[in-house]
Amino acid sequence: MTERPSPEHMRAAVITRPGGPEVLIIAPRPVPALVEPTDVRVRVVASALNRADLVQRAGRYPAPPGVAADIPGLEFAGVVDAVGAGVSSWVPGDRVFGLVPGAAHAEYLVTHAETLARVPEALDLADAGVLPEATITAHDALRQARFAAGERVLVHAVGSGVGLAAVQLVRALGGVPIGTARSDAKLEAARAVGLEHGIVPERDADGAPRFADAVLAATDGVGADVVLDLVGGSYVAESVRAMASGGRLVLIGLLAGRATSLDLSRVLTRRLQITGTVLRSRTLVERVAYTQAFVRDVVPLLASGRVRLPVAATYPLEEIATAHALLESNEVAGKVGVRVTA
Amino acid sequence: MTERPSPEHMRAAVITRPGGPEVLIIAPRPVPALVEPTDVRVRVVASALNRADLVQRAGRYPAPPGVAADIPGLEFAGVVDAVGAGVSSWVPGDRVFGLVPGAAHAEYLVTHAETLARVPEALDLADAGVLPEATITAHDALRQARFAAGERVLVHAVGSGVGLAAVQLVRALGGVPIGTARSDAKLEAARAVGLEHGIVPERDADGAPRFADAVLAATDGVGADVVLDLVGGSYVAESVRAMASGGRLVLIGLLAGRATSLDLSRVLTRRLQITGTVLRSRTLVERVAYTQAFVRDVVPLLASGRVRLPVAATYPLEEIATAHALLESNEVAGKVGVRVTA
Repeated sequence: MTERPSPEHMRAAVITRPGGPEVLIIAPRPVPALVEPTDVRVRVVASALNRADLVQRAGRYPAPPGVAADIPGLEFAGVVDAVGAGVSSWVPGDRVFGLVPGAAHAEYLVTHAETLARVPEALDLADAGVLPEATITAHDALRQARFAAGERVLVHAVGSGVGLAAVQLVRALGGVPIGTARSDAKLEAARAVGLEHGIVPERDADGAPRFADAVLAATDGVGADVVLDLVGGSYVAESVRAMASGGRLVLIGLLAGRATSLDLSRVLTRRLQITGTVLRSRTLVERVAYTQAFVRDVVPLLASGRVRLPVAATYPLEEIATAHALLESNEVAGKVGVRVTA
Repeated sequence: MTERPSPEHMRAAVITRPGGPEVLIIAPRPVPALVEPTDVRVRVVASALNRADLVQRAGRYPAPPGVAADIPGLEFAGVVDAVGAGVSSWVPGDRVFGLVPGAAHAEYLVTHAETLARVPEALDLADAGVLPEATITAHDALRQARFAAGERVLVHAVGSGVGLAAVQLVRALGGVPIGTARSDAKLEAARAVGLEHGIVPERDADGAPRFADAVLAATDGVGADVVLDLVGGSYVAESVRAMASGGRLVLIGLLAGRATSLDLSRVLTRRLQITGTVLRSRTLVERVAYTQAFVRDVVPLLASGRVRLPVAATYPLEEIATAHALLESNEVAGKVGVRVTA
C-alpha cells in the first residue's frame, strides 16, 4: 500500500439528530481506513450540496448500509491520498472526482477504485466538486431512457443542477431540449445553456399543472420522446399527455410529491414507459457502470466546456448549515458548492 | 409470381356498423391481391377470437391504416396460396401461422412474408389458429420486461389465453409463475399448466383489489420481478406494492379500466418500470422482430407440447356472432376458436 502520512482525524459535517440546518456541526472524525484491496482514499477538495443531503439531515433518507449514517455528501473532487494493494489505476496525487453514497462532506473519504473518474486538466479541482451528481444523474437517466440523437427531451425543473446538465447533454448528443420551470427566471438559466423551448406550466382549476399543449405545440404535435422528471406528483399525469408514441419517462425526483393519477389507456396505446431511478442505492457493479459511462461520454464534454454548471454560491465546510438553509429556500439557481480543503 | 387459381370472392366476417354481435354478417368480399413483391397470400384454415375483435366490433378500436376496417381477426393458421415475386422463403402449400393487424376472419389474407411462421409438423392446422396471439403477446411482454431465468413473474387474469401462455412460457424459460384471477375455477386452468401460486384478490372497503401481501408471502417477502398485467385499473397501484426492487410491469390490457393512482415514491426508490404495450399498431419492422422471436423461442415449445392452450369452444366462421357473444360473457376459460375453411 502506498500511503502518504495523513492525520488520524479529519473535519466532517455531522448530523447530530434529525432536524433543520441547526442540527449540523463540524466535528472531528477518524480518517477512514483502506479496508478492501480495491479501496482508494481521497482527500476531498470540493463538494456540493444536493437535495438528498437535506432529506437525509431531516431524517427521511438514511444512508445505505456500510456508509457513515451521520455524514452527508454525495459528490466530490479531490486528490488520491492512498490506494489499496490491488489498485493499479491510481497513484497518490491523482486528481479525481465521482459519486459516493454518502460521507463526502468530510476531509477524507474511501471508495472503490473503479468509481473514480480523472478530472480533466482544463478543470480546477475547486470547481469540479459540483459536477458529478448532476451530470451523472442526467446522463444515467438519458441512458435508461435509451435516448437517441434527434429525439425531443422534456426536462422538468430544468433550472436545477440536473436540469441544466440534461439540457447541455441533450444538445451535445444531438437532441432537442424542452423544459419546464416554475418561473421565467429559472428558464433563463436553462436558455443560457441551450434550452430550445421553455415553459412555465399553467395551473388548472384543481391546481394541476398544464404544459402538455405547449409541449405538443413545440414538437409539431408529436410530443416528447423522453421526459426527465425531477418533479413527480401530478407532473407525471400531465407528462403522459405530452409524450410521443413509444415515449419514455424517467422519474428522478418527487419535488411535487409522491401521488399521481394515471391514464393507463394512453400508456397502453402509445406504448409509454415510466421508470423510477435513484443513484444512491445502486450496487457496486452498477456504480462502476455509470462511472465508466460518465468517463466515456460526459467527462470529455466537461473538459471542453460544452457542459458546465452555474454555481449559485460556494461555502466552506464550516458554513455547511448556511449552505443547507440556502438550498432549502428554493431560491437558488444553480449548484451550491462546498469548499472542503484548499 | 407463383399463384394457384383461386376464386375471385371469399367469405368474410363483416362488421356492418358499430354494435353488439348482431351487427356481424358473413358476406362475400374480393380475395385480396398481392401488392408488394414481399407479399404472401394465405388461405386461412383456422383463427380465433380475441377481445380486441369485440372492441373493434363495438366501434372503439379501429383497424390501423391499410387494413380492411370492417373485417376483424388478428391471428390465423393456414396454407400459403400465392407468393410475390420477391418471396423465396415460402411456396404454395406451406403451412403457416401468425398475426395480422386485422382481417383474419376471412378465407384469404395477404401479409408480409417475414411475418409468417412455419407450423410444426406435430400440430394440426385446425388447432394452430388459436396459438399466435396469446403466445406472441405473452412472449413479447416477457421480452419487454427483460425477463430472466429464476425470476418471479406475477400474471394478472392468469386464466386468459395470454395468462395461460405466460404461465407456460415462464415455466419453460426457468421462472416462477404466480397469478391472480377472479375465481378459483380460473386459477384451476392455470394450475393445470404449471401455475405455482394462485391468488384470488380480496377487495378492501373501497373495492380496490388486495393481492400484494399474498405475492410477498409467496416470494419470501421479495416481491415479483416481473408483472404481466392484462387488467390495469387499480391492479397497477396494487402491483407496485407487490414488486421487487428493479421490478418491471408490462401493461397489456385494461379489463379493469384505464384509471389508477400511483405511489411514485415506491416507483422511484425501488426503481420500478411500467411499460404499456400493444401489438396491433406496431410497424412492419417490429412485427418481423416479434415473429422471428416467436419462431426462435416459442414455436419449439408449441411443437413439443410444452406450451399449449385449452380451447373452450370452436365455431365455424358462419357462427362468428355466437362466438362473439360467448367471449363477451366473460364465462369462457380458454380460447374461442374460429374454423374458417376445411
